[in-house]
Amino acid sequence: MGNFIKALEPGWLKLAQQAHTVADNAYAPYSDFPVGCALELNDGTVVLGANQENASYPLSMCAERVALFSAKTQFPSKTIDKLFIIAPNSKSKLPIAPCGACRQVIYEMQKRQSSPIEIVCGSEETGYLHFNDAGELLPNAFGPEDLL
Amino acid sequence: MGNFIKALEPGWLKLAQQAHTVADNAYAPYSDFPVGCALELNDGTVVLGANQENASYPLSMCAERVALFSAKTQFPSKTIDKLFIIAPNSKSKLPIAPCGACRQVIYEMQKRQSSPIEIVCGSEETGYLHFNDAGELLPNAFGPEDLL
Amino acid sequence: MGNFIKALEPGWLKLAQQAHTVADNAYAPYSDFPVGCALELNDGTVVLGANQENASYPLSMCAERVALFSAKTQFPSKTIDKLFIIAPNSKSKLPIAPCGACRQVIYEMQKRQSSPIEIVCGSEETGYLHFNDAGELLPNAFGPEDLL
Amino acid sequence: MGNFIKALEPGWLKLAQQAHTVADNAYAPYSDFPVGCALELNDGTVVLGANQENASYPLSMCAERVALFSAKTQFPSKTIDKLFIIAPNSKSKLPIAPCGACRQVIYEMQKRQSSPIEIVCGSEETGYLHFNDAGELLPNAFGPEDLL
Repeated sequence: MGNFIKALEPGWLKLAQQAHTVADNAYAPYSDFPVGCALELNDGTVVLGANQENASYPLSMCAERVALFSAKTQFPSKTIDKLFIIAPNSKSKLPIAPCGACRQVIYEMQKRQSSPIEIVCGSEETGYLHFNDAGELLPNAFGPEDLL
Repeated sequence: MGNFIKALEPGWLKLAQQAHTVADNAYAPYSDFPVGCALELNDGTVVLGANQENASYPLSMCAERVALFSAKTQFPSKTIDKLFIIAPNSKSKLPIAPCGACRQVIYEMQKRQSSPIEIVCGSEETGYLHFNDAGELLPNAFGPEDLL
Repeated sequence: MGNFIKALEPGWLKLAQQAHTVADNAYAPYSDFPVGCALELNDGTVVLGANQENASYPLSMCAERVALFSAKTQFPSKTIDKLFIIAPNSKSKLPIAPCGACRQVIYEMQKRQSSPIEIVCGSEETGYLHFNDAGELLPNAFGPEDLL
Repeated sequence: MGNFIKALEPGWLKLAQQAHTVADNAYAPYSDFPVGCALELNDGTVVLGANQENASYPLSMCAERVALFSAKTQFPSKTIDKLFIIAPNSKSKLPIAPCGACRQVIYEMQKRQSSPIEIVCGSEETGYLHFNDAGELLPNAFGPEDLL
């Protein structure tokens, strides 16, 4: 369960701005629901994602996973420390948390490193939703330890 | 967060047995991890699912979603009351909870009806994991209310 | 490459009607694009699918895969002989062929049996698109033989 | 249908080498089947992808889509001109073509631009498979024109 917070800590401000900006690069003609994601690696590198939809809806991809997959392709041995997402068009005006599929991917990426991935879901109008790590997003998670 | 329970209540016994049996129909040549799912509708109808893998791993499908999609195709106006899953080959011997993608699908199907979907994840050896409804699987969920 | 045909052969008429009917069971609040699928097994059993969408678009599922996964869960040792799909709301009024994800699933299910899966994509207004087997849908396919 | 070619044209050599190298960044503990993808934009920019698997197999992602989604996030207005993929561990020693899901994504990205995406699938041992554009990968494709 995440915690609502009113304002961002200084370390998140630049990330939040980059996530908001990259939402303009979403391809969302079907949902009209652009989402932007910015994640920060342990050396300060920022990797971005914007959702990319498809006429066959199941082949659409969320902003979070675009950023996560791109980060691990480019920098497989760096850890992911922070992940910020924002959906500027959200009707509810509330912070939007990742979908279950993205949570599963964040969870396994956190397992691959020895440190938590901190997540903030943003809304300029109503505040932010903060998660200390992927486990809060996916209680009693299924993961690699069950399979290998 | 789910609760561990030692034994199944009587109303779940037949469902558990059907989920275990249908796991034999899984097509899992890549993971060797068959999973069976049985769900019960409000009139007692049972619908089954077994995971169906693909050489292109992203096109594999979980047992839970096979059952859920099949149920709503056949009986769109009935409610889903109970869902039981079991992975007989699990290395951890612990009950296996649904992956994040399945949680998101369960969540929206629960939203489509006016009653909760109760979920039990089984392991004959170590007990069961019980969730009162889809919200326990997906705290702070993203859902249709954010989009429409 | 499929072939356009003007009229259905008698063996497809009942299947086409069932696919059309089950499209009413689609859950398509986001796309307003219901699709129905009916497939026939070697003993004449018919299994149905209707698309089931999700607010997280990537977690939506196509009608074809609902029917295919359900068929193999219930009848893993029967072969799939015929598959018919129709999208009653299609703007183009042309027969709609399966998306790439469904093609990959049809392809591997065909590999699992010793006989082709014949596919017809329907439109009552403009005729039908016919494929002799899954290979026509997915030339130079990636499949289990590359992996195992 | 693609064409087999013995050797790469000079314009593809660097791209092929980058795809081969980035396959080392794949996270493929379940399949042991790393894949690398390199695509080139109209201004010569190269964007890379490596497959990223998940214990929940359906949440795995192919190398091609990692590269494609990342490219459109970073450079939404540039066109994708060339895409090269290679699976260094392929048992068949033959060039591996994209799965159906990736074909559908390539297809819609080609639709978004006014020029074809040329695709080469590589194998150092047995030659290459060449496609002039996404249409050759997905005959009678379903696409945005059917939906919007």
